[in-house]
Order: sequence, then C-alpha cells, then structure tokens
Amino acid sequence: MKVLKLDETREFTPGAMKRFFLVADSEFFKIINFNLEAGVTFPVHSHDLDGELSIQVIEGEGFFLGAGDVEIVAKEGDILVAEIREPHGVRAKTAMRILVTIVPPI
Amino acid sequence: MKVLKLDETREFTPGAMKRFFLVADSEFFKIINFNLEAGVTFPVHSHDLDGELSIQVIEGEGFFLGAGDVEIVAKEGDILVAEIREPHGVRAKTAMRILVTIVPPI
Repeated sequence: MKVLKLDETREFTPGAMKRFFLVADSEFFKIINFNLEAGVTFPVHSHDLDGELSIQVIEGEGFFLGAGDVEIVAKEGDILVAEIREPHGVRAKTAMRILVTIVPPI
Repeated sequence: MKVLKLDETREFTPGAMKRFFLVADSEFFKIINFNLEAGVTFPVHSHDLDGELSIQVIEGEGFFLGAGDVEIVAKEGDILVAEIREPHGVRAKTAMRILVTIVPPI
C-alpha cells in the first residue's frame, strides 16, 4: 500500500494543462491529476475500447465536455462517470484540478 | 455519461459510518462515498482476490489502517492505494469523508 498526496501536485503551467501520473503502474487502474489554469481546455477525446473512467473536480470550477456541444457545469465535488469510448473533456473556468481514474489503465 | 455530486451525499450517522454507492452498476469499478463521524472506525478487512482500490480523503482527517497496528495519518487530499487482498481500513479523528474506488467492482 502507498499514500499519494494531492497537496504535493498542486502545480500549474501557464496557459496549459499540467499532468501528474499518481498511479501509472497498476494493471487495474490509472489515476492521474490534471491541473488546468483558468481558460484551459482538456480537449474532447475518446478511445475505441471497453472501459470506464471517472473525472472528479477537486478544486475550482468549469465544465465537463461531451459529444457535440455538450457542456455540463462542473464544480468541486462533482464527478463525471463515462465510458472510455464516449467523448469526454473538461474546460476550466477558474484554475481547476481534476482527478481522473481510468479502468482499464490505457 | 453521468455526473455524481458529492455535495449531495454529505450525511453522517451518529456514531457510525454512512455509505453511498455512487457507482454500483459498472462492470469496471465501484465508487463509494463513506462518511464517518469523529471517532468512528472502518474496520480493517481484505478480500482474497486480485484487484486494487483507492481511498481518497475528501474531508476531515484521521488514519489509514493496515495490517497489524499500522496507522498512517490521512488528511484531505491524501489517497491510499492498496491491493484488495492487503488489509485496509480507516479511523476518523474528525468527521471524515472518503471516496473509495474498487477495481474490479466486488
């Protein structure tokens, strides 16, 4: 067992998205912390395979993005759950931190 | 895709642990929010199968518990990652909320 600390990955890159692979070596899941400065978009994407993911807002607010022009308000404590093959993305309104868990760990 | 809201499951049971199955119907993972009043223990347990889990502190503080007398300080933003077959538990010092993701969804 190990303990990860989100306090230690609170770093932002000006105008971009910073990515920390918290768990990258498991056969079961991948856990990634993305930090987005205000205005930054994590572009909508998908992968053609069976699996599911969660995107939890741990700080700030913005929008969960989906297929077409879908935008869903996303605030701290909100968790998007989607199939990996469903288009998904995020846009930050304020500085925004998200925690993504992907199963299987693609 | 669906959006879960942790703000809507912030309920405690006096002297006990309250459990909300946020995702209970996926073939890939299970996501559960447990809310523990101060002093409450989520007893150490394990399951004899392959898999992994994460326990994220989303509010309050306490301890992650492991085999024997292992206690690791657990604060908001800390995430325990363990195999399902490793003994794991939680003890709340203050009112404490945790988010547990289990793969596979046993």
